[in-house]
Amino acid sequence: MKIIRDPVKIQNLLSKFSNKKKIGFVPTMGALHEGHLSLIRKARKENDIVVVSIFVNPLQFGPKEDFKKYPRPIKKDLYLCKKENVDFVFYPDVKSYYKKDHLTFVEVEKLSSILCGRYRKGHFKGVTTVVTKLFNTVKPDVAYFGQKDLQQAIIIKKMVEDLNFPIKIKISPIVRDSDGLALSSRNVYLNPEERKRALSLYRSLKEGFNLWSKGEKNAKKIQRCILNVLYEGIDTKKDSIDYVEIIDTESLEKKEIIDKKSAAVIAVRIGSTRLIDNIIFDKDSNGLYNSND
Amino acid sequence: MKIIRDPVKIQNLLSKFSNKKKIGFVPTMGALHEGHLSLIRKARKENDIVVVSIFVNPLQFGPKEDFKKYPRPIKKDLYLCKKENVDFVFYPDVKSYYKKDHLTFVEVEKLSSILCGRYRKGHFKGVTTVVTKLFNTVKPDVAYFGQKDLQQAIIIKKMVEDLNFPIKIKISPIVRDSDGLALSSRNVYLNPEERKRALSLYRSLKEGFNLWSKGEKNAKKIQRCILNVLYEGIDTKKDSIDYVEIIDTESLEKKEIIDKKSAAVIAVRIGSTRLIDNIIFDKDSNGLYNSND
Repeated sequence: MKIIRDPVKIQNLLSKFSNKKKIGFVPTMGALHEGHLSLIRKARKENDIVVVSIFVNPLQFGPKEDFKKYPRPIKKDLYLCKKENVDFVFYPDVKSYYKKDHLTFVEVEKLSSILCGRYRKGHFKGVTTVVTKLFNTVKPDVAYFGQKDLQQAIIIKKMVEDLNFPIKIKISPIVRDSDGLALSSRNVYLNPEERKRALSLYRSLKEGFNLWSKGEKNAKKIQRCILNVLYEGIDTKKDSIDYVEIIDTESLEKKEIIDKKSAAVIAVRIGSTRLIDNIIFDKDSNGLYNSND
Repeated sequence: MKIIRDPVKIQNLLSKFSNKKKIGFVPTMGALHEGHLSLIRKARKENDIVVVSIFVNPLQFGPKEDFKKYPRPIKKDLYLCKKENVDFVFYPDVKSYYKKDHLTFVEVEKLSSILCGRYRKGHFKGVTTVVTKLFNTVKPDVAYFGQKDLQQAIIIKKMVEDLNFPIKIKISPIVRDSDGLALSSRNVYLNPEERKRALSLYRSLKEGFNLWSKGEKNAKKIQRCILNVLYEGIDTKKDSIDYVEIIDTESLEKKEIIDKKSAAVIAVRIGSTRLIDNIIFDKDSNGLYNSND
């Protein structure tokens, strides 16, 4: 496994494979968990070359967010990548990847200003900008994203389509801990009490999903059901709900009636930790993204 | 010469050459003149495969601008491309290139809102967005732009650097008509009287350049000299000056003292036709961009 920090160096190295080998790419901010590993394994299965990037992208953090305290267990991350037979880890330095006086930004308008974008101004603009840089650096054939960050995955799919990137985007199902909490590098911020309250996220989504399974198609009623379970589980003195919405999985628009391309998406602050989760209204996949899409 | 309208088709065709053949790319809006042809000839000399795109990009025109009346002599353009031994002409249809509900934009901030950007809101955002699309479609090794649109060329260089496009940008010198007018597809809008007044653009730049050649380094004095010549040559009842500035050829910042990386840039409305021109303070190249850069 090669660990490369210099963008030009990895660009040159990987460009030699184009047309010969299929490159699968998993962009990450490190602090790898089983969710990331599921993407890496999928990439390993489907490609000749697997590239993982580890880069805590300052551009996607707001001024009051956790850029500084975001976990960076680089040794463990590299160990995990090696174990999964990753070929290249791209691990750029912030200063060499963003030149001083960086001025260029990529933005998917509308989709980036709703849901999480309403609460994290500039976040998705930071994501689409760094993903464009990473795509140009790695030039993959396929790139893998997790369903946990559903809005992000949908925005990136839209960006790839709008800007004609010759890259296939694959979205892989959420991976959960045994207690149901969606895996996230930010879960380490939770103390045991908070973690208990955080379990209400998935519980609420499951309740909404069950209600829908029984035939309820009215989005408002499902939303109400999810909210009820959430309010039971959180401590409103310490926690707060950013949003609970039923959305279209392409346009991100709010749905009135749940149909084929619908998901429930939620964002909740448990103490000072912001958590997101979602469920897709698909019985065959049991609420998960169909990763063959 | 292959003429291809479908973005996916040309993307697949050209991707087969990557790693094997060097692709030179000349993006144009058609209405080709000797300025474009100089870029195409340079591309032909320096690459194995030459791709020219012809696309009047609606995104870079303001609502009151000349998108509809912009000349589209496609037959002549194709004839000229063929004569110059172009390999591929990419000639997309607006509706198939911008899907309905296009939401993604690329912007080089700061540089896009000054000079021409102040007078043409959104223009450069439209340019950088379409150039990103074209770069992703064609995946060239080298792309050629003209010095006449100096701000555009500088913005694209910055975009390529900021977003890690593995593409070399080359800027080629302005080509002028025998009377000195910088070639532009918009020159056809000028009636004979207007054309006479339009000659004051280059005349003023030459005067400024001569003053500098004699040792004047003060940007304000050069600017004043250019303005004086301009005001003599135009008809202030019919024409107006958007700007005359002495700028840095990388940062586009206004200069106080003319040094190595300096240019005079001007934009003037002759009747209803907006013209731009510029000169680089370089004696060796006689005011032209050193195309070996």
